[in-house]
Amino acid sequence: MKGFAMLKIGQTGWITKDTPACGPMDAICKPLALAPCTSDVHTVWAGAIGDRHNMILGHEAVGEVVEVGSLVKDFKVGDKVLVSAITPDWGSLQAQEGYAMHSGGMLAGWKFSNFKDGVFAEFFHVNEADANLAHLPEGMDLGAATMISDMVPTGFHGVELADVQFGDNVAVIGIGPVGLMAVAAAGIRGAANIYAVGSRKNCADLAMEFGATNIINYREGDIVEQILDLNHGPVDRIVVAGGDNDTFDQAIRMLKPGGVIGNVNYLGDGDTIGLPRVEWGCGMGHKKIVGGLMPGRRLRSEKLARLVQTHRIHPEKLITHRFEGLENVEPALMLMKDKPRDLIKPLVVL
Amino acid sequence: MKGFAMLKIGQTGWITKDTPACGPMDAICKPLALAPCTSDVHTVWAGAIGDRHNMILGHEAVGEVVEVGSLVKDFKVGDKVLVSAITPDWGSLQAQEGYAMHSGGMLAGWKFSNFKDGVFAEFFHVNEADANLAHLPEGMDLGAATMISDMVPTGFHGVELADVQFGDNVAVIGIGPVGLMAVAAAGIRGAANIYAVGSRKNCADLAMEFGATNIINYREGDIVEQILDLNHGPVDRIVVAGGDNDTFDQAIRMLKPGGVIGNVNYLGDGDTIGLPRVEWGCGMGHKKIVGGLMPGRRLRSEKLARLVQTHRIHPEKLITHRFEGLENVEPALMLMKDKPRDLIKPLVVL
Amino acid sequence: MKGFAMLKIGQTGWITKDTPACGPMDAICKPLALAPCTSDVHTVWAGAIGDRHNMILGHEAVGEVVEVGSLVKDFKVGDKVLVSAITPDWGSLQAQEGYAMHSGGMLAGWKFSNFKDGVFAEFFHVNEADANLAHLPEGMDLGAATMISDMVPTGFHGVELADVQFGDNVAVIGIGPVGLMAVAAAGIRGAANIYAVGSRKNCADLAMEFGATNIINYREGDIVEQILDLNHGPVDRIVVAGGDNDTFDQAIRMLKPGGVIGNVNYLGDGDTIGLPRVEWGCGMGHKKIVGGLMPGRRLRSEKLARLVQTHRIHPEKLITHRFEGLENVEPALMLMKDKPRDLIKPLVVL
Amino acid sequence: MKGFAMLKIGQTGWITKDTPACGPMDAICKPLALAPCTSDVHTVWAGAIGDRHNMILGHEAVGEVVEVGSLVKDFKVGDKVLVSAITPDWGSLQAQEGYAMHSGGMLAGWKFSNFKDGVFAEFFHVNEADANLAHLPEGMDLGAATMISDMVPTGFHGVELADVQFGDNVAVIGIGPVGLMAVAAAGIRGAANIYAVGSRKNCADLAMEFGATNIINYREGDIVEQILDLNHGPVDRIVVAGGDNDTFDQAIRMLKPGGVIGNVNYLGDGDTIGLPRVEWGCGMGHKKIVGGLMPGRRLRSEKLARLVQTHRIHPEKLITHRFEGLENVEPALMLMKDKPRDLIKPLVVL
Repeated sequence: MKGFAMLKIGQTGWITKDTPACGPMDAICKPLALAPCTSDVHTVWAGAIGDRHNMILGHEAVGEVVEVGSLVKDFKVGDKVLVSAITPDWGSLQAQEGYAMHSGGMLAGWKFSNFKDGVFAEFFHVNEADANLAHLPEGMDLGAATMISDMVPTGFHGVELADVQFGDNVAVIGIGPVGLMAVAAAGIRGAANIYAVGSRKNCADLAMEFGATNIINYREGDIVEQILDLNHGPVDRIVVAGGDNDTFDQAIRMLKPGGVIGNVNYLGDGDTIGLPRVEWGCGMGHKKIVGGLMPGRRLRSEKLARLVQTHRIHPEKLITHRFEGLENVEPALMLMKDKPRDLIKPLVVL
Repeated sequence: MKGFAMLKIGQTGWITKDTPACGPMDAICKPLALAPCTSDVHTVWAGAIGDRHNMILGHEAVGEVVEVGSLVKDFKVGDKVLVSAITPDWGSLQAQEGYAMHSGGMLAGWKFSNFKDGVFAEFFHVNEADANLAHLPEGMDLGAATMISDMVPTGFHGVELADVQFGDNVAVIGIGPVGLMAVAAAGIRGAANIYAVGSRKNCADLAMEFGATNIINYREGDIVEQILDLNHGPVDRIVVAGGDNDTFDQAIRMLKPGGVIGNVNYLGDGDTIGLPRVEWGCGMGHKKIVGGLMPGRRLRSEKLARLVQTHRIHPEKLITHRFEGLENVEPALMLMKDKPRDLIKPLVVL
Repeated sequence: MKGFAMLKIGQTGWITKDTPACGPMDAICKPLALAPCTSDVHTVWAGAIGDRHNMILGHEAVGEVVEVGSLVKDFKVGDKVLVSAITPDWGSLQAQEGYAMHSGGMLAGWKFSNFKDGVFAEFFHVNEADANLAHLPEGMDLGAATMISDMVPTGFHGVELADVQFGDNVAVIGIGPVGLMAVAAAGIRGAANIYAVGSRKNCADLAMEFGATNIINYREGDIVEQILDLNHGPVDRIVVAGGDNDTFDQAIRMLKPGGVIGNVNYLGDGDTIGLPRVEWGCGMGHKKIVGGLMPGRRLRSEKLARLVQTHRIHPEKLITHRFEGLENVEPALMLMKDKPRDLIKPLVVL
Repeated sequence: MKGFAMLKIGQTGWITKDTPACGPMDAICKPLALAPCTSDVHTVWAGAIGDRHNMILGHEAVGEVVEVGSLVKDFKVGDKVLVSAITPDWGSLQAQEGYAMHSGGMLAGWKFSNFKDGVFAEFFHVNEADANLAHLPEGMDLGAATMISDMVPTGFHGVELADVQFGDNVAVIGIGPVGLMAVAAAGIRGAANIYAVGSRKNCADLAMEFGATNIINYREGDIVEQILDLNHGPVDRIVVAGGDNDTFDQAIRMLKPGGVIGNVNYLGDGDTIGLPRVEWGCGMGHKKIVGGLMPGRRLRSEKLARLVQTHRIHPEKLITHRFEGLENVEPALMLMKDKPRDLIKPLVVL
């Protein structure tokens, strides 16, 4: 089969591989829609997860089942499916403790385009199909459905980690597609004021549509000062969905005691994340910091799909560029790399 | 001063009392807007909290401060204020444990029209003013503001107790004003499908506007069957905001293992609430049951006011009947007692 | 193979069956030690789970692996293993939501001697071996190890459900083997006073040794009054590990607002569990009620084994009667049925 | 009255001040027992909280009430009392949100020897006496009682922040008096293996007596390697009760995904706490970090006192040096400054 791969750090290309084998609990799918992710860009051009050779890229997809293992009960050939970007081993000790995304080791529930071939191919392999696939609801927009692989659950997890409560004032740092879904999630988790930090106009517009009350443009001054001013003091919760290691220093400075920082941003560079000692209450300020890989799982995909079906969220609005045909995952990925100002997220329909 | 009182069980009337005295931490307010509550009806005509003599009724109000005690720091004469229906003693052991509403004994944080005179008077007394009042935001509709006393926080507490999570399917039993606010709260807490149980048309219409996906009319068949059918199985969470002791039997039958029932309905009659043994998993089904008086507090009022200001909720839509002048609390209360079909909630502006 | 079975309601006997087949994720074990459980008695003589024919009994065992499926990674033939009485399907939606014990339906994670043959046989089958077995730590007493199947995790789950916090005063109702482990668990969860309700002398003595501060004998007066007296008011938490449907009425009466009742008692009879309306705060007292089947799982067995190894708990002290040879599961079970006064728990070593 | 004060950074001495005035909610006490704290040393000689002039030191005391305000209900002249080192304002918004220790600003619930005169004087002032004092149980050792001011609640809070669960393996970094109480707390919170990091023999001995399973001596090699070796991998929870800013880097390296670091160490120096990016899972490892000032409050003192009375904990064993007479707070403080090898905690009885 044909797939679009990372050949080595800094280099991509089309390769040919055997169609993946299907274990007794697994499924083989062909893609119906695909989307590239900033992680793919980090993986190839920043070498963020180390070197990989001839590894097929991609972890955001809607698929159609073409083969199932003998132990699979709930899916059959021909079923159209939501595919979680994170596909844990459900019997693992980590899953038993509530951290399936770290099954087999920290972050190791993330398998596509990390430890095995990804979805940018004619066929892809899904481990534990009953637990990691979900049925595509009839009539669901393929753009929305593809966003349920990663963008929606990652943004939503930031809001869960930050533990937003009714009436909280919340800062969302970063309004790329994940940050935008975090804005939407904060809005339907009970936030009052939502300060969305970003600078790109189309993202800012969508943030407002998704429920932000204010856009904080870091080009117009220190974001900490802007938010402390607007909010008349520190905020209740912060979701970090962008920025870099220094973002945590800013976040601590604008967070009230008892507040929480929920990070879902992949920190790709540098040795250290520095917390400011005094503003962190000399260690005693109850400013909680937690960052986590989004939970994959069938249940999650089903619940997020329900939110789309009941019109609570509109992830299809993230899609700014649409392509057709597997061969177009290459230009779609290049778009993510080059980030033209009108881009939020591209989609490739097959 | 003049006040509208419960004279004894079954009888109301206007009485004259001394203006209440103001302790060092307290405030005296005059009402700017008032609303009667179903609890007032229960108190007078069902004798739900036992007998009371010449006790001024009412616990939903917006006020203006006319006197403050020497230890009050944040409020001064002339301030317009949101008044929480529940006004705890904040130094109590119960408050220190997170259950301020039970300060001094179960339910004893509820003082207005229970242990002391209520707000249907020319003046009323607020204990621990700094902790139990909140500033009325400029420009806020008096109807919305009055609903922050009780209807909004009670409905929201039901959703907190039921611990609604992203994508949950939720049943809200009862769509009087509290149930309607529970519907709104479920919607901004991340619920997907919201099954609102009720029969009155104006309530049903507002439930749909507030985010319900389905109206379940108990006049059209067993609600358990209707919900199990529509939802293709048991729901994730249930908020009980109406019904009676038998409602819990129904709720257990339509709740999945691991689900939660959050009750905010005042159960006024009968000896016993019965749980069905088998459907409760013979005691082992992880179907959690919790019921609680809404938390009063300044912080709560402030956070709920923010939700009004950011247009996340619209409690002013509960107001179906508007009156002017203190003397009209009497007909307003009679409306609550008689419940004409077009009533949701009356408001009296002074 | 030979096994000791429930032939039908009210009747037991030895039967012969084929050795169970081993699926790809499963293991076949032979027992090294076995214990009968009160549930076995309920199952046979009360017909508590309905009729069963020729179903081998028993769910408490330590075993030795004699066969493993092709997908099993962490266990091999000859390994000695702790066996969880509850053996969930880990990929199920319920497991993904944190309620693996209800995988496939309420209580359906309980398979041994419920939906399939139990452990009182020459061989028994364990589904998802990697997830539901744990290695027997070297040198661990077989009595302690067998108690990790059910008695320890069930008692401990009661304390988790009741959410005991540092310095809480706790009532444990019932001091059979599960209640005794709940007493021990409350002690190492931070309880201060522990009121253990029971009447048998050997149980009472062991309760005191395990950390109870007082024995409340229901033969000497109403337990509610006794506990309210001793504790100078209601307790913080209650673990229900015995009694019947009426126990909940008592528990509500002795529980403070904000408290929790955690039930792990199997309620085998009657239609309804009745909660007293007024003492339950008319629905608003924040007296939480939750009952749940204990979580099985390898991780759980490993963590409880650590507590034995670090001498935090001593479940081997539950064993009052020791037998040798598979044939003695019959008299051991009869002991559980007859409950002589010196019995806490029998063990059969093979 | 006479008091032992910080005259300025680096200098202490005896001064004379007016006896403090008693507000309506307050109490004036005379000390019955006192203990100096490492914080006093930091405050004076490191200038950790900035400069202070003629501020009386000390925040650990048992007292006798000599005057009460008119609104105080539960305490009267002559009552012997436990005094919490943290004395919040209970009506504050922070208290209403569950963070009373930050009432009025981050850490501002800590008033003694920070924002007002401390307890090393003939008399001291307690704000909100009903909420911040507790009755000294009859017969309680004054050493144990004095440790309930700060050492016990701070150590216990570390374990609460780290959210220790049954069977967890826990590292406690630092075994001064707070760390020792954290070891004891971990033991009665359900920890299995407890790795106590320290080097002083008397502290190590007491750590073992309080429930540690291993002493990790940082003089004998890298503590991360030692703990990873002994534990065969990362631990479940870490309590930081000593060390410095670099301790967090070590803690992250020895913590499993899904684990928690609970800090109660006062970080007195340096600009930044650095977290290692890769070991923190590139921001996605679910390694939670939270640090907090211990919760003061009457309820807390009462619950901890119960743990002493039921012999669950033995804080009196911290006391290695006993003095008599107020004048001896000076040599007692100097002991804390000089830390002779046989010191854990001195006590001054009056």
